[in-house]
Amino acid sequence: MPALTRQQARMIDELAVNKLGIPGLLLMENAGRNTAHVVLEVLEDHLHLIAADAQVCVVAGGGNNGGDGYAIARHLAVTGASVTVLACVALDELEGDARTQADIAERMGLVVDAVGELFPSAVREHMDTAHVVVDALLGTGFHGQVREPMVPLIGAVNEAHTRGIKVVSVDVPSGLDCDTGQSGGIAVEADVTVTFVAPKIGFEAEGAEAYTGQVVVVDIGCPQWLVGEVIEPG
Amino acid sequence: MPALTRQQARMIDELAVNKLGIPGLLLMENAGRNTAHVVLEVLEDHLHLIAADAQVCVVAGGGNNGGDGYAIARHLAVTGASVTVLACVALDELEGDARTQADIAERMGLVVDAVGELFPSAVREHMDTAHVVVDALLGTGFHGQVREPMVPLIGAVNEAHTRGIKVVSVDVPSGLDCDTGQSGGIAVEADVTVTFVAPKIGFEAEGAEAYTGQVVVVDIGCPQWLVGEVIEPG
Repeated sequence: MPALTRQQARMIDELAVNKLGIPGLLLMENAGRNTAHVVLEVLEDHLHLIAADAQVCVVAGGGNNGGDGYAIARHLAVTGASVTVLACVALDELEGDARTQADIAERMGLVVDAVGELFPSAVREHMDTAHVVVDALLGTGFHGQVREPMVPLIGAVNEAHTRGIKVVSVDVPSGLDCDTGQSGGIAVEADVTVTFVAPKIGFEAEGAEAYTGQVVVVDIGCPQWLVGEVIEPG
Repeated sequence: MPALTRQQARMIDELAVNKLGIPGLLLMENAGRNTAHVVLEVLEDHLHLIAADAQVCVVAGGGNNGGDGYAIARHLAVTGASVTVLACVALDELEGDARTQADIAERMGLVVDAVGELFPSAVREHMDTAHVVVDALLGTGFHGQVREPMVPLIGAVNEAHTRGIKVVSVDVPSGLDCDTGQSGGIAVEADVTVTFVAPKIGFEAEGAEAYTGQVVVVDIGCPQWLVGEVIEPG
């Protein structure tokens, strides 16, 4: 399966939306559901836990990667898992599809506001009781240096990982540049990265695997031939 | 798992949309993807076929059940299956979420217009080459007597079934009253009925199993506690 650059991944989303008329919210819903499915597999295969006995903590940023995180949380909750989403960017700063997904998760009672004076200790507390932490802080759009407040959040995810809590990253480990495979000063060290449509080109770079862990590709409901259109245009 | 009446199934959809803010289009998308997953299992378990070798024919009506059918077709196509949706009601008569899903499937090149002078012979021809026929003609809203043009379409599905083609019904076999389990003169005889959220109360009626075949319940992305709210209100 060919690997995608940031630009190609974005073009596939745009083609799905503009050429096929698939609303972006549906792509996000499918991403959420299919990632939730992989989280359930991690719980079962690595920890021998069924959904009803599992505790999952999703850390969600403010962009579409965060929106995926809210969708993942909802689909996990539907399976009977205990799920908390730590809103690391205030919900009223979210826009578009991410806001729609966050609002649903909020109405389902899954969201804890992680933007406040208890940060980052409350974040650590929630992660400590989780079997799996889902990293939905920064997506493929990220490049450059990781900034506040993401630095201590990524640090907290990595501390959880060090303590043996399984970490699943959404699309790309937060803080990793998906084109170069280089960390922006700090990046999540995941056990599994669930990436959409196709692997990202940076995952092949030397040292990137220490961040991505195992890479699992899931579809988001757009046809695979869109990849061909973007990779070999014309 | 408690069984639902038509009215309760409708109330769960309404609560999901109005109380939790889940757009109906997302519920339809989830219904489509999760039903597609069951179709893949039927192909694998009953026919030992992987998606890439499978031919699926979806017969789609004009309501939300038809809309589910278009979503199922798209998700099956993404897995690599050869899929045709026979539009048994003209696309420009569809409305709302069903129209959105039909338009996407149309842009993906999956839709064949089955409303025309070749009906019903063209329908039979398409079904004859399929491994699985997906019945998305009439949903839980149906009651009373089956009318034109659904009578010969349901007849064609049942002829395919008699010839050994596997039939998967969406939510309820077309032509079966989901409250009484009685056929409206004619009803699809399915191998598997993929029903949403919970079984329907009519499935327990004497003789209903001859229509439903095996009943598989799938979620549509709304939490299971909504069922409790509707069954034991207050």
